[in-house]
Amino acid sequence: MIIELRPVGVVRSCDDDATATGTHGETLVIEVYPDYAEGLTGIERLSEVQVLYWMHELDENDRNTLITHPRGNRARPKEGVFALRSPMRPNPVGCSAVRLLKREGNRLLVTGLDALVGSPVLDIKHS
Amino acid sequence: MIIELRPVGVVRSCDDDATATGTHGETLVIEVYPDYAEGLTGIERLSEVQVLYWMHELDENDRNTLITHPRGNRARPKEGVFALRSPMRPNPVGCSAVRLLKREGNRLLVTGLDALVGSPVLDIKHS
Repeated sequence: MIIELRPVGVVRSCDDDATATGTHGETLVIEVYPDYAEGLTGIERLSEVQVLYWMHELDENDRNTLITHPRGNRARPKEGVFALRSPMRPNPVGCSAVRLLKREGNRLLVTGLDALVGSPVLDIKHS
Repeated sequence: MIIELRPVGVVRSCDDDATATGTHGETLVIEVYPDYAEGLTGIERLSEVQVLYWMHELDENDRNTLITHPRGNRARPKEGVFALRSPMRPNPVGCSAVRLLKREGNRLLVTGLDALVGSPVLDIKHS
């Protein structure tokens, strides 16, 4: 059984910094594609949302990794990827609770999104 | 761009109740497929994990729905699916924070998993 997902948007930086992530409190932009923008109706009343995104930087090898060192620290014994938040995992879908600062049309300004710029966005939910 | 996910397990009931869900505090079982069981290494030390699952009961129509009545209540105006937790959404991936009661080999006993029995499990993460 294969499950197919379609990106509904993409993570952008606020200021052309292609290496930005939201891990250190930076503001990132979720740009929702026009075909899906109607799904944002009413979202401006929320201060927090949950975002699912695809960790697109991983390759097939990373998806076949089932045990790894926590936080990449080789001094620590390997643990299962299901016991960690390592990006290496069979289905590298990230899940972040983010603060919604502002909606500008089909763009959401958020903080706390632990995703690389360029990551496909899979879903946005009431948290 | 199409993203392909592979189920790593399935939601089972504890007692052959095929209509059970974990929404009311029932204990459910996450059965991880043998090919992925190594990914559970060390998970028994966690008391809470995050579970991503596929809402397999939805059809293509539900995936094309972008606005709907909150909680199916027609007295309330429609809102965007990204502002709700409606199962109807372009990528019906559920995300639950669950309590991990016990690990028995490749089976995890959990409460708080808001999934139907039979749902494919996509990921388990440290919460």
